Amino acid sequence: MAGKDNRKEVIRKLKGLGEDIALSIESDKVPKMKVPLRSFSNIQFDKQSNLLRMGDKTSLRNFMNVAHTKKFMQTMLIASKCEELVDRDKTASIRELYYQLKHTVAGTKENTFEGQDESDPLIVDLETMLSVLREELHLKADDKGTIIGNIVIEDSGDFIDCSKLGRSGLAVPSIVEQYKFHEVKADYCLVIETGAMFDRLVEEKYPQKNNCIMVSTKGQAARGCRRLLNRINKELKMPVIMFTDGDPWGYYIYSVVKAGSMALAHESERLGTPKSRFVGMTVTDVEEFGLEKVTEELKDVDKKRISELLQYPWFQTKEWRHELKLMEEKGVRIEQQALASKSLEFVAEEYLPEKIEKGELLP
Amino acid sequence: MAGKDNRKEVIRKLKGLGEDIALSIESDKVPKMKVPLRSFSNIQFDKQSNLLRMGDKTSLRNFMNVAHTKKFMQTMLIASKCEELVDRDKTASIRELYYQLKHTVAGTKENTFEGQDESDPLIVDLETMLSVLREELHLKADDKGTIIGNIVIEDSGDFIDCSKLGRSGLAVPSIVEQYKFHEVKADYCLVIETGAMFDRLVEEKYPQKNNCIMVSTKGQAARGCRRLLNRINKELKMPVIMFTDGDPWGYYIYSVVKAGSMALAHESERLGTPKSRFVGMTVTDVEEFGLEKVTEELKDVDKKRISELLQYPWFQTKEWRHELKLMEEKGVRIEQQALASKSLEFVAEEYLPEKIEKGELLP
Repeated sequence: MAGKDNRKEVIRKLKGLGEDIALSIESDKVPKMKVPLRSFSNIQFDKQSNLLRMGDKTSLRNFMNVAHTKKFMQTMLIASKCEELVDRDKTASIRELYYQLKHTVAGTKENTFEGQDESDPLIVDLETMLSVLREELHLKADDKGTIIGNIVIEDSGDFIDCSKLGRSGLAVPSIVEQYKFHEVKADYCLVIETGAMFDRLVEEKYPQKNNCIMVSTKGQAARGCRRLLNRINKELKMPVIMFTDGDPWGYYIYSVVKAGSMALAHESERLGTPKSRFVGMTVTDVEEFGLEKVTEELKDVDKKRISELLQYPWFQTKEWRHELKLMEEKGVRIEQQALASKSLEFVAEEYLPEKIEKGELLP
Repeated sequence: MAGKDNRKEVIRKLKGLGEDIALSIESDKVPKMKVPLRSFSNIQFDKQSNLLRMGDKTSLRNFMNVAHTKKFMQTMLIASKCEELVDRDKTASIRELYYQLKHTVAGTKENTFEGQDESDPLIVDLETMLSVLREELHLKADDKGTIIGNIVIEDSGDFIDCSKLGRSGLAVPSIVEQYKFHEVKADYCLVIETGAMFDRLVEEKYPQKNNCIMVSTKGQAARGCRRLLNRINKELKMPVIMFTDGDPWGYYIYSVVKAGSMALAHESERLGTPKSRFVGMTVTDVEEFGLEKVTEELKDVDKKRISELLQYPWFQTKEWRHELKLMEEKGVRIEQQALASKSLEFVAEEYLPEKIEKGELLP
């Protein structure tokens, strides 16, 4: 899917891994590989760049250690299959990869893999060992998300004008490396948590009236969606503004788009958008816009999640600490769609444009 | 969203409901409404049309019965708000509707609605009472699904050529009443359960090579997706062929697309596609294509679900009974993506085109 030069580079890395192992064997040394540690203790928040990053702790996988032997073999199988995928310019889902590699080891009754839970973590090992994105290994995660607005995207030879897609919008695929951006006339990109709010803003012609692009994440943003936002922000220098429910779950969705996730800390650079900002909902909004009647009481799980966010290094700005504390204090959360209690148009005609124009955004 | 004539008709029905109630009050009679019963006992499978249908049992909602009074008031509030939506040509999500109607009853501390669980069932009451689709009341469910292939869709004034959307495809919105179909050159519409399999077939250029449209449901098909398939089949006379995992969950997803669902039996006529057929996966495929190594053992929940399907009147054809019994007997299920064990291309180059050409389809 990626450009030819990049494919060559990825193949070079995969071959390098194989050649190192072959060299060990030929010179009668024990084949080993160094795998970066992915535990919480090896994840750091880099304040400078505003991204979650992986530290430099590694563990050693030793072919002659029986506890490691099977994983070692499995990692090599995956690397070899990925090399084939990249070389043939094919992509596969991680489930397909598992099925492609599952077979009986010749002369035994042993299977190469018993379940996908054995292959998935080794894919991440490979990504971190070689510093390549899963997408560059031509492996796909699930897709989710929609984009609409004033941007022309070239995808596999087709020029897609996202402002001419009615009320439907373009489905964001799991891999967007092949996207090329053309004729972008928008001022910013608004990212929306719920599909229903996205629909509301489409109906109100928000992108046309405010000259923006809109992306719907439909809950936690999928990798394709996160990579798309990263590229829109970096390559087009376009501000990314996020709009979620006013609860700890929405705030975490924002933080993953912004700083990356713990599970994929090694890919934050290419999946995170550290310059993104947050427009709402907040508990401050509740008072400012008179929404007291349509808040929901915090449940115990909400409260627990708020305390967790208050511990995360990337929620330590004074603005976010203030909002989280205020939510705890008031004991309420507020949904995007609660703005409908004012009027259906309120979110599109007053709430969003006013907050964005005044720059009332959280970092 | 719908045409103007249809909007007038829906408004007429909503007003009719209000006028009946007003007439009762003016003539000192007790206001009552007749609500079709939605329990299992009032759902029938119509063999002739191959659709689940609601029977004609009703219950009476009586304003003077204190157990009914609140629901009565709430139903009238919803009807009135829907009339406003249709009149203004606006749509709202069912969550927005709830927020729009939630307020304190004047002079009391009583809320009109305490939660969305109070408004949702009354929306269905209204649909069944008036024989209108939720979409015709301008209410939206969540959207999900993607369409790609040789069809030009007009949506809100834009002409969208779904064969020119790269690898991305068009996101199917929650309401597709406004879609108009132009220039359809495809032979059939292939409906695919998983996003990953849809991606595989896009990558293999299946729609181009087999001159078909493809729709991905991403699990259970959303209402917008089901309505789209219904319209593609009815208005374009295009065969609809479904491709799911070979397990009771995939088969049920197919049956909902085909015959409708129990919860929405009153809308089967417009959401079901009784002429659709099923290409796979089946346990028969396992032997035919030598897939024994990549099946999964049935779990207890799978077995339980199979016995349930064997009870449903709409699974009583000999072909389906045979497949379900065979699955029980062999004790295995098979996933779409397991076909990757042959080769990535196998599903697109052999499995699907051969089965479809030979007409090896289940009813």
